[in-house]
Amino acid sequence: MRRAVALAALGLGRTSPNPVVGCVVLGADGEVAGEGYHQQAGGPHAEVHALRAAGDRARGGTAVVTLEPCNHTGRTGPCAQALIDAGVARVVYAVADPTDQAGGGGAALRAAGIDVRGGLLAEEAARGNEVWLTATRLGRPFVLWKYAATLDGRTAAADGTSRWITGPEARAEVHRLRAEADAVLVGSGTLRADDPHLAVRHGAGGTVRQPLRVVADSTAATPAAARVLDGAAPTLIAVAPGADTAHLTAAVRAGRAAIAVVPRASGGGRGLDPHALLAELHARGVRSVLLEGGPTLAGAFWAAGLVDKVIGYLAPALLGAGPTALRDAGIGTIGEAFRLDVHDIARIGPDVRLTAYPQPEPHPLNGSATATPPVPAQPTQPAQPEPRPLTAPVTEES
Amino acid sequence: MRRAVALAALGLGRTSPNPVVGCVVLGADGEVAGEGYHQQAGGPHAEVHALRAAGDRARGGTAVVTLEPCNHTGRTGPCAQALIDAGVARVVYAVADPTDQAGGGGAALRAAGIDVRGGLLAEEAARGNEVWLTATRLGRPFVLWKYAATLDGRTAAADGTSRWITGPEARAEVHRLRAEADAVLVGSGTLRADDPHLAVRHGAGGTVRQPLRVVADSTAATPAAARVLDGAAPTLIAVAPGADTAHLTAAVRAGRAAIAVVPRASGGGRGLDPHALLAELHARGVRSVLLEGGPTLAGAFWAAGLVDKVIGYLAPALLGAGPTALRDAGIGTIGEAFRLDVHDIARIGPDVRLTAYPQPEPHPLNGSATATPPVPAQPTQPAQPEPRPLTAPVTEES
Repeated sequence: MRRAVALAALGLGRTSPNPVVGCVVLGADGEVAGEGYHQQAGGPHAEVHALRAAGDRARGGTAVVTLEPCNHTGRTGPCAQALIDAGVARVVYAVADPTDQAGGGGAALRAAGIDVRGGLLAEEAARGNEVWLTATRLGRPFVLWKYAATLDGRTAAADGTSRWITGPEARAEVHRLRAEADAVLVGSGTLRADDPHLAVRHGAGGTVRQPLRVVADSTAATPAAARVLDGAAPTLIAVAPGADTAHLTAAVRAGRAAIAVVPRASGGGRGLDPHALLAELHARGVRSVLLEGGPTLAGAFWAAGLVDKVIGYLAPALLGAGPTALRDAGIGTIGEAFRLDVHDIARIGPDVRLTAYPQPEPHPLNGSATATPPVPAQPTQPAQPEPRPLTAPVTEES
Repeated sequence: MRRAVALAALGLGRTSPNPVVGCVVLGADGEVAGEGYHQQAGGPHAEVHALRAAGDRARGGTAVVTLEPCNHTGRTGPCAQALIDAGVARVVYAVADPTDQAGGGGAALRAAGIDVRGGLLAEEAARGNEVWLTATRLGRPFVLWKYAATLDGRTAAADGTSRWITGPEARAEVHRLRAEADAVLVGSGTLRADDPHLAVRHGAGGTVRQPLRVVADSTAATPAAARVLDGAAPTLIAVAPGADTAHLTAAVRAGRAAIAVVPRASGGGRGLDPHALLAELHARGVRSVLLEGGPTLAGAFWAAGLVDKVIGYLAPALLGAGPTALRDAGIGTIGEAFRLDVHDIARIGPDVRLTAYPQPEPHPLNGSATATPPVPAQPTQPAQPEPRPLTAPVTEES
């Protein structure tokens, strides 16, 4: 299963709006007969790749898959049927499929007499699929807040200069984060201050999938000459009702930008309603958002409870003045502080990368979502009775 | 030698104004015959402890010691002579003694026909002795800046509340840092905001050496009822010339505080001159200062180039408002940022501890001090010709 989780990760950034899935098929002899992963939306599912690689050796064997096999016919046929046709004797999956549409694969397999077990390495597999699981369960895009700051929390010096706070290794990682996201989001303040390009740098050879560049720009202050309007990647300018977008008409006509009108935040806030902005992005197929700043936009997302994960790059530097990474998050006293759990710490060149998840409200991955999920949240263990309850850990085959 | 460095560390916080020193004596058979470390100022040196433990087995053996043995008679006799008297055949030390007073031990040993080698694990041993080496070479106390902040760099919430940003494990560590320091320093702003006690908590059993509590308080704003005036540990209130200290007279008469008058910073700064404050502390026997805040005092020390080490406790929390860890450090643009090298990252309970050293000005441990050292800086390798140059690494005996 660990191998299957690693295979699944190979699809990160390419499968949206689908999950990442990895599959290892073992022959009746217990040896690896085939491997596969879901490589891109519209392409074959992981099970199909692995079954093709295994060929006849799948008969009587075991399919180890990170997500409960689907049971519906979309652009590709149902994986449950493919597994039945291939004659596998046993299916072990990590995470149950929470969707109405695709779910039920486990039951279909069982009905065909296959030994089905769920829950193996479920936490690890769920973490690898956090974007899709969160987006599916909450009906909105997964939001990853990325920030870069000095040890004293400054994102720029007093005069606004910030090139470069972090080293080249951290900056390269941010391009990877952008490539894995469906959309990259900044506020209009950041746009005016830094005029960021937000596109993914093309490496040597190979194509790069560009995320949607999104500017939360209630007053339509994005200049016509902004770098995000250069056509290098799709761009969406989200404005408030009544904003004057006349200066952006040329960019829209040329296909270099789209404009979406999004309600203002309730309660007299100056900016857009973060919930409404995410709903607009979800409607446009966005399942993951990399929130890159600035501090006011990040504060609005935190205040609305809409941050699912944090990656902070801490540069070993001190400034003593200048803007901070987060502002206006609605916190007045220490007891109201947003608390997080540090998931990982790593050195990235001279910098330190912290990966953290918000607490104490249960994370959607725990199955108890903070908002009402649009699809019934299902426990990781299927609710239907299993022929043989998983009382002992399943032996890890891979 | 690694064992000797570990032994030396056992003396941390007890040997000031002396260095920490560890010594392992090997018999002629190469087996460990005795170990020792400098346990407290005025007590026997590490070599004496180790030689006593080794007894006759030292004859013909090797003494492995973290610092070049001393050659002067103070409260204890010269270690070089003790090693000669014990009949050791070989002395291996890590760091050369930079002082005029104690130095020359290596030469005395050589003159007695002993095989002497320096430089083994010098960097590691120097790091373990950073407080004493820095204080000796620069003629001022070593300054360790400790701060605790959220991931967005806040040390308190907007309303000033800060209990508790970090967890109990980090707070316990701070008490250890205080116990290892000769003095703990805060500014008057922190004193008024938090009324900190600054003494070391007594653990179950055992005595605790209390650091000198120092308040940088140019206007003598420390209230007579401040907790630092409770007599639990010695306290020094450093005030500017002309400050009205009448309300502190009772505390001084009762022996609960001393008052020192220190010049104001040049250039019209509001606070005390950090150089002059450190000189005052040095004159009072302080060789290490734990700078605990607040942001303005820390900024003054950074601006003066007087921070030797940083330990930051990062709490996995976000506030979006409130005071920051560093202020008024004289930095206006990104190119002027203080740059550091991260030496260590560790999880301390739920928090993250970063240990860093300022760069790029060479650290005093590198032998090229930024200020003119009061004693001639000596290279780690003794300047005098060695009978046998250390061309190959010395085998590590322990």
